[in-house]
Amino acid sequence: MRGVSIVGIGSTPFGVLEDQSLKSMAVTAANEAIGDAGVDPKEIEALYVGNFISGFLAGQATIAPQIADLLGLKKEIACTSVEGACCSGGIALRHGYFLVASGMAERVLVVGVEKMTHAPTAKNTEGLALAMDHETSEGKSGLTFPGFFALVAQRHMHEFGTTPEHLARVAFKNRRNGARNSFARFREEVSLEDITNSRAISDPLRLFDCCPIADGASAVLLCPTEQAGKFTDAPVEIVGSAQTTGYNSLYNTPSSTTLDATVLAGRQAFEMAGIGPEEVDVVELHDCFTIAEIVDGEDLGFFEKGQGGFAVAEGLTQVDGKIPINPSGGLLSKGHPVGATGVGQVYEVVKQLRGSHENQVTDAKIGLTHNLGATGQVCTVHILRRV
Amino acid sequence: MRGVSIVGIGSTPFGVLEDQSLKSMAVTAANEAIGDAGVDPKEIEALYVGNFISGFLAGQATIAPQIADLLGLKKEIACTSVEGACCSGGIALRHGYFLVASGMAERVLVVGVEKMTHAPTAKNTEGLALAMDHETSEGKSGLTFPGFFALVAQRHMHEFGTTPEHLARVAFKNRRNGARNSFARFREEVSLEDITNSRAISDPLRLFDCCPIADGASAVLLCPTEQAGKFTDAPVEIVGSAQTTGYNSLYNTPSSTTLDATVLAGRQAFEMAGIGPEEVDVVELHDCFTIAEIVDGEDLGFFEKGQGGFAVAEGLTQVDGKIPINPSGGLLSKGHPVGATGVGQVYEVVKQLRGSHENQVTDAKIGLTHNLGATGQVCTVHILRRV
Repeated sequence: MRGVSIVGIGSTPFGVLEDQSLKSMAVTAANEAIGDAGVDPKEIEALYVGNFISGFLAGQATIAPQIADLLGLKKEIACTSVEGACCSGGIALRHGYFLVASGMAERVLVVGVEKMTHAPTAKNTEGLALAMDHETSEGKSGLTFPGFFALVAQRHMHEFGTTPEHLARVAFKNRRNGARNSFARFREEVSLEDITNSRAISDPLRLFDCCPIADGASAVLLCPTEQAGKFTDAPVEIVGSAQTTGYNSLYNTPSSTTLDATVLAGRQAFEMAGIGPEEVDVVELHDCFTIAEIVDGEDLGFFEKGQGGFAVAEGLTQVDGKIPINPSGGLLSKGHPVGATGVGQVYEVVKQLRGSHENQVTDAKIGLTHNLGATGQVCTVHILRRV
Repeated sequence: MRGVSIVGIGSTPFGVLEDQSLKSMAVTAANEAIGDAGVDPKEIEALYVGNFISGFLAGQATIAPQIADLLGLKKEIACTSVEGACCSGGIALRHGYFLVASGMAERVLVVGVEKMTHAPTAKNTEGLALAMDHETSEGKSGLTFPGFFALVAQRHMHEFGTTPEHLARVAFKNRRNGARNSFARFREEVSLEDITNSRAISDPLRLFDCCPIADGASAVLLCPTEQAGKFTDAPVEIVGSAQTTGYNSLYNTPSSTTLDATVLAGRQAFEMAGIGPEEVDVVELHDCFTIAEIVDGEDLGFFEKGQGGFAVAEGLTQVDGKIPINPSGGLLSKGHPVGATGVGQVYEVVKQLRGSHENQVTDAKIGLTHNLGATGQVCTVHILRRV
């Protein structure tokens, strides 16, 4: 196992990109990453594309080889689409990492992409819900993701005293962060009052507790750390990488306030990196709902179980707080183009570690990304370090 | 890079499996492979699932972690769905192979699965066509796969003198083979006359020139070759493995009678195995249409370009011929549960190399599987050898 570094990054903004197709977004992000690294596309030895549901939503499947063809990559290489619901992007990165770490490839391109906003809301809701387990009670009974995370929130409030205001504080912070990130879908701050008065979606979750769909693509280019200096003055090394599996349904999980896949992935990634949560300077984690940010922060070890809501209320997760979480605005403000999200998080953290983020965390050296799929069925965690 | 062997195989029959769900088929095949190897499920270190379109057709996405949960695999491991249209199964195998070959895992489970026959024909046609490139002329203009391969056939006939009878001979052979394989969807021989008189689908392709959709799942269990003896008396080593990329559309390929991704994948796999086509004893290749079997056989180097049709007519590809192709019945008779096909081919070849196939090729020692996605956009070739 050799060191792997990110030497190129690229991204479209996340939002309503009416003029861009699924593939044009992927090509834009990929070409930016390739250009950022200054790599000849013919040197790329593999492509991974993270995508959840382009066939269902955008009428286009099998996009990895199609994107490769548009980029002019070599035909001798493997170009693979991976799917793990909202974790698809993280899985793509994990596979690119593996290929370079194992010595099987020298230059690997990783892209995450999703096109969603052209489709009606009902179609998006149906599409997203395809990731639930439809053979057991939950999917069959019509439970969708807002309902799932509302159940998690209800239990978290019951067990730990988390309040609706704690949830609102997450949305408030991430809206404020998003306002400072030109890649975010939502660029306006929202008052706590507007958040707590917004319409109910699934009690206790209100409109601002839920992340928006979006169009978008992000890309990174990987190479062995020992070669990174050839491509960039600011390489970022992947020092921890983990992918784990969770339970199919809430009803058979040991606890409904912990997502085990996150706990296991965090533990593996920290062990691999040889550091603990206290050494992390900046985090982009999977805040598909406000309660998810609270649960994720606890499951990753940044806070004791049950303390996540209180930590937000104390300001600990602000960009100038003890452990800045989602300075990008997170899924809640930046938006959630499902397959792109996991790579987009890495794009954001690399910018932080390069010191060039619009909402910069002072002197960030170590960052963590956490990407979660479906009802916690699949999770990736990556730890990144400025070289 | 260390040697990787297949020590367990399992499969459902391919066909109309009304009583089985997508996941129940996957679990059946996987448990059979696990049992065949005698491996403790808790020892499995990764799962790859090849699936094309379960979200669109079967209303269930994100199936890799869900199958893992049903199988009782460990939560610490990565369970990943890969998609490359009709090549999804081959891509899954390729990734399992990589993980073991690189030393990153000791036991890896690979599953291919698709559920199709419950859905109306129009929905299946629409679903399959999602793999075409819909941003250029072909997908947009309404071209589907029978039309694509009819164009290939027309050009092949024009350039090389391939005849409708050559095509019919492929169907005739594969129907006869399928009649001897209890895992095949179609179990009855069909006369040449019935084949050539069957209704036109897309000139020159007739009904029997086209493979049927099917439900089905297949699975294999991989471990390092040096440990294979612990699990089986008849290990089969993967001595060649390749995955390549083709062109998005027929109109921009250098030739419409050659699928370059196949040529490149075959070349890579043979080079890795250190053998040539003449040393292969049995082949399962991607005969989605009769013309595809002819083109694939040429592209893999079993026949000169243009000679594939004549070779079939001479009986060279029969089970007792010089190079037996698709003794399983192939996609044409066994059926094509899209995501399962690539793993199903390996299931068939392993049975051949174990000497236990119902349509056994005498003393088969080396086998080859060829799995093709979309309009030749992605291809895998694996070469297997009896240890």
